[in-house]
Amino acid sequence: MKVKDVSQKVGGKIRKIRKEKGLSQERLAFEAGLNRAYIGYIERGERNPSIKVVARIAKILKISLNELFKF
Amino acid sequence: MKVKDVSQKVGGKIRKIRKEKGLSQERLAFEAGLNRAYIGYIERGERNPSIKVVARIAKILKISLNELFKF
Repeated sequence: MKVKDVSQKVGGKIRKIRKEKGLSQERLAFEAGLNRAYIGYIERGERNPSIKVVARIAKILKISLNELFKF
Repeated sequence: MKVKDVSQKVGGKIRKIRKEKGLSQERLAFEAGLNRAYIGYIERGERNPSIKVVARIAKILKISLNELFKF
């Protein structure tokens, strides 16, 4: 895996799991204390989030953090 | 796990694996294209690195990225 792909891979995993859990971007954003648009950017791999932001998202999705890095 | 602990957990894993691999902070920093002091801050959990930075470190340590998030 190329390093430059990591944002897209993590973002895609977040989107997939969020949808599986039946959460809207709005709900995830609200619960995680993040901007709705920022969630959209992250899911499309257009941002390079910090590990703390990804940990907050994992917590709301009720998954262990390393799940988002399995690809 | 509390979100605020994530930097310390990931940093500790990086330090542990780096030492197991017999790499110095200087070498890891050079190979990853990062500042030596920044590696020290990350390992002590005093910085909140982006997922791309952590991916670059994982690549140099020759481990899969999700290894750094297993704790």
